[in-house]
Amino acid sequence: MKPHTSRLDLTVYPHQVDVQSRFADVDPLWHLNNVRLVEFYQEARTSFNLALWEGLNLDARSHRLLVARQSIDYLGEVEWPGSVSIGAGVAHIGNKSYSIGLGMFQRGRCVGVSDAVLVYATEQGSAPLPEQMRDALRTKMLPNAELKK
Amino acid sequence: MKPHTSRLDLTVYPHQVDVQSRFADVDPLWHLNNVRLVEFYQEARTSFNLALWEGLNLDARSHRLLVARQSIDYLGEVEWPGSVSIGAGVAHIGNKSYSIGLGMFQRGRCVGVSDAVLVYATEQGSAPLPEQMRDALRTKMLPNAELKK
Amino acid sequence: MKPHTSRLDLTVYPHQVDVQSRFADVDPLWHLNNVRLVEFYQEARTSFNLALWEGLNLDARSHRLLVARQSIDYLGEVEWPGSVSIGAGVAHIGNKSYSIGLGMFQRGRCVGVSDAVLVYATEQGSAPLPEQMRDALRTKMLPNAELKK
Amino acid sequence: MKPHTSRLDLTVYPHQVDVQSRFADVDPLWHLNNVRLVEFYQEARTSFNLALWEGLNLDARSHRLLVARQSIDYLGEVEWPGSVSIGAGVAHIGNKSYSIGLGMFQRGRCVGVSDAVLVYATEQGSAPLPEQMRDALRTKMLPNAELKK
Repeated sequence: MKPHTSRLDLTVYPHQVDVQSRFADVDPLWHLNNVRLVEFYQEARTSFNLALWEGLNLDARSHRLLVARQSIDYLGEVEWPGSVSIGAGVAHIGNKSYSIGLGMFQRGRCVGVSDAVLVYATEQGSAPLPEQMRDALRTKMLPNAELKK
Repeated sequence: MKPHTSRLDLTVYPHQVDVQSRFADVDPLWHLNNVRLVEFYQEARTSFNLALWEGLNLDARSHRLLVARQSIDYLGEVEWPGSVSIGAGVAHIGNKSYSIGLGMFQRGRCVGVSDAVLVYATEQGSAPLPEQMRDALRTKMLPNAELKK
Repeated sequence: MKPHTSRLDLTVYPHQVDVQSRFADVDPLWHLNNVRLVEFYQEARTSFNLALWEGLNLDARSHRLLVARQSIDYLGEVEWPGSVSIGAGVAHIGNKSYSIGLGMFQRGRCVGVSDAVLVYATEQGSAPLPEQMRDALRTKMLPNAELKK
Repeated sequence: MKPHTSRLDLTVYPHQVDVQSRFADVDPLWHLNNVRLVEFYQEARTSFNLALWEGLNLDARSHRLLVARQSIDYLGEVEWPGSVSIGAGVAHIGNKSYSIGLGMFQRGRCVGVSDAVLVYATEQGSAPLPEQMRDALRTKMLPNAELKK
């Protein structure tokens, strides 16, 4: 269940964001704590979604995205002080949900990958992704995305 | 890729711990934030490991456990103020690693499950699990654990 | 600038809440991190305010409380795993603001005190505390509160 | 008890660091949470101390700095996404302790100031500041520092 090798290269991700580590992220073993690294992935995911939906004419109150599933592969240690670059792209488009694929890099080395499944919901509950959302998602696909299970 | 139904029942987990939610866990959408819920799972996992290794005669400096992978299924919202009960047990024993299966419950309802793969390492790097660790792990197996992939 | 000795006794505080420490609160020096302890004080302050305003007929949308100032005296180390008891009471009532005095205790020992100044605000900005708020605050005064500067 | 006006200008601080806000810092009221802002001050304080002690020949194991007191004045709201600049300098040098004065700025506006008292300790407990520490501290004084109580 190793991450697909294409995911280990920052340049394949259509969206990229830098996240600065903090002393507060350092854990008792002097690693960047693995829970705090999930916070880093959250930052990249939020930034990616903001960029994706910015141009769309969607009412923020009538719809939202819920994290249904997240997996994280920790591939290397991350150092403080310093920054990481996180790449983001669309890994899968479903009927009522889509997956964001993320990769974390420090000094050119991939230190982790993560996938998050987001479910689209209106006030009535989960609902099919609007067509304009699908169109936006299709512009940010990861390469080989279809090969992923 | 739904969680195995056996995992939705708190009583199947050999180890259980209560975690109190905090206002600091509440996010801008007034949910318990999904990253902070990973902190809850970390608490249960740490508590489980402490209980497991307590009786063993292992030098804390000569070995450690690294989180190699974690997946989280978010199945329901968690409320503040209040507590959750988290169950923990061994889902899989490998050669150099083992998996902890976790389930989070609020008012009798399963609000999430998580699996974490921990790699055993000495100062020289990853290493086969010592036999006394294996023996301890076998006493805390989740039912149907072998059925899991 | 030592804390008033009356503040070192849990029983003087009219409101009390227990907060459970987490592994995530432990810092690289194996102390409960001093920023995370501010999170503990926030939990007690929020709990105190909720209890205070519960009976009042105030519209949550038309008013809010802003933290204007907070001071924390760290008097002893806090251990994980374990819980602390935090006491809370009113230290001062001003025109548009009031102060909450807090004390943190572990195993009967005072490990810290904190004061927070909260400013009352409506949608138009800071405003005099409504009379029913003042009445509620007066029922939860700390002893010697008037002696404090 | 207003902060000294000299503290509201970023250029008076001899040490400056930028801290990037995260979605995880946003609280249920869509402000940067006031506890998380304490994490920002911790980042600046840690960075300041690292820079200060870097050149000194002090054994990291034989001494440490404990936060004894911290106060925070919240002067304005901080926005996400975005960064803040935090200035740091020495506000006071005592016998066994010193104070760091901090100021937080966003888009040229001072959004908060904070003071932290750090106590010097060896393995035997609190101890007088070594002379080379005093010398280093004197090079990073805030203006009007002596005027502060």
